[in-house]
Amino acid sequence: MSLIAVGTVAFDALETPYGKTDKIVGGAATYISLSASNFMNPIKIVSVVGEDFDMDMLANMKGRGIEQEGLQIKKGEKSFFWKGKYHEDLNTRDTLITELNVLIDFKPDVPESYQDCTYLMLGNLDPNVQLSVLNQLKNRPKLVVLDTMNFWMEIALEKLKEVISKVDVLTINDEEARLLSGEYSLTAAAKKIFAMGVKTLIIKKGEHGALLLQGDKKFYAPAMPLDLVKDPTGAGDTFAGGFIGYLAKTNDLSFDNMKKALVYGSTMASFCVEEFGTENLMNLDQAKIDARHQEFVELVQF
Amino acid sequence: MSLIAVGTVAFDALETPYGKTDKIVGGAATYISLSASNFMNPIKIVSVVGEDFDMDMLANMKGRGIEQEGLQIKKGEKSFFWKGKYHEDLNTRDTLITELNVLIDFKPDVPESYQDCTYLMLGNLDPNVQLSVLNQLKNRPKLVVLDTMNFWMEIALEKLKEVISKVDVLTINDEEARLLSGEYSLTAAAKKIFAMGVKTLIIKKGEHGALLLQGDKKFYAPAMPLDLVKDPTGAGDTFAGGFIGYLAKTNDLSFDNMKKALVYGSTMASFCVEEFGTENLMNLDQAKIDARHQEFVELVQF
Repeated sequence: MSLIAVGTVAFDALETPYGKTDKIVGGAATYISLSASNFMNPIKIVSVVGEDFDMDMLANMKGRGIEQEGLQIKKGEKSFFWKGKYHEDLNTRDTLITELNVLIDFKPDVPESYQDCTYLMLGNLDPNVQLSVLNQLKNRPKLVVLDTMNFWMEIALEKLKEVISKVDVLTINDEEARLLSGEYSLTAAAKKIFAMGVKTLIIKKGEHGALLLQGDKKFYAPAMPLDLVKDPTGAGDTFAGGFIGYLAKTNDLSFDNMKKALVYGSTMASFCVEEFGTENLMNLDQAKIDARHQEFVELVQF
Repeated sequence: MSLIAVGTVAFDALETPYGKTDKIVGGAATYISLSASNFMNPIKIVSVVGEDFDMDMLANMKGRGIEQEGLQIKKGEKSFFWKGKYHEDLNTRDTLITELNVLIDFKPDVPESYQDCTYLMLGNLDPNVQLSVLNQLKNRPKLVVLDTMNFWMEIALEKLKEVISKVDVLTINDEEARLLSGEYSLTAAAKKIFAMGVKTLIIKKGEHGALLLQGDKKFYAPAMPLDLVKDPTGAGDTFAGGFIGYLAKTNDLSFDNMKKALVYGSTMASFCVEEFGTENLMNLDQAKIDARHQEFVELVQF
């Protein structure tokens, strides 16, 4: 059992109403793999960084069972960098700087040691990169989860739809579900999206939680109401990492088990947003996860 | 065991992206009492209408166990009328017409036959009217639930705070919780609101569900994801009616029972929004309610 996490490994500089950071480590594959590593290993990253990247962080991740043979380190180049500022409600943000750097001509190369992949998390990236990874795997993984965003719907819709048709689970937010389907109602949107060939849809609603849909089956996991959300960066990736990490650990793809995985995804995301960047994810242990998970149980059981 | 419902009984004219109506019956006390009547009776209304009101509707309500001795019918006057148009997302709306009419000098008069009241639902109205009803009851009801809105926070905050300090449960939406407390986080807002003297807070989040808070205890009930929401008018009142109706029926004020009541409130609200005005509420039966309630159970259980 192994999990491949595809996505950016990058630098972010963040400003929210609760503070700001200099360049810190971020990126979809970083959050996904850190989150999933609380459930299983090995996790195998497919990504690219520049020579400027934080090598101590990579060593730390390696110690958590996050393998990096598929992580290209480009000599003389710089890592992807994003600088953003969140508004008061934390749901909207302005991009201040985007430096694509190593992402400009990223060609993923899936190592032979990754061919045992049974779970594949295609984090938010160019659909061409996502498709390339999927095509390089000789055996179709047992489960493929795809994350994407409105940007790719706007500039690469046909390619994105091709990827959607090849995966098992799609995770997008509510606005993106509406954009992709042209339907305002999320259940109506789901029907249109199912017609694109994906069987399971997760609609992320930020502070309002997440909806899991499969055929006529529906499940709703709220987000944990928190006294202070400092930084929402990476919450969606952390959520996805918890979701697929729990599924890989339990190796059970029933809808009932996906419900449990969704709650673990929400659990991990609730830690992520309490501190800036990956800080909280680096300081978790099983007892903290179990306690927070129990809070989720109490939040919804009646 | 009896339940008093205080609030408007009125005419609405509604326009949403899914249709429009001429003048139809609406009003907080109408929705509250119709919703609660699915759980218990008698329900006793305190309100005021004009001579122009729909007397067939009042007779129909009477047949459902909704008593009207405290409903003043003002000869030669007109009922409260609101005309509004909802935006595409149904979360925002423009008021096109507000005719206060009989509401201008409404002095509630609680009849002697209402003095057996054990459950009191103070629907959204001038806090002076809410307070007057509370003060006219010789015995403090077992449970008082208060609904209000941003309008009263803006023009009558001190009086509203006086009412809040005298009730058991406050229901407001997320924006109103932020306005009333000055806190963005809903759990932080709840702490400030508890300091105003109310022990239990329900924060309504529209299509995202509702949060029940009491001390450190939290419970979240999602809204039912629906293929088509035609008209959100009255959803909050219908929710409150289901909540207090279920509590009055079961006569159990534990937090665990309030959780169940919240889900019944959400169940009733989900019917309300599927059709314009009170249409769907007029055509419910126990089997429909049980089936929808079971959908809620399946939506959250894992």
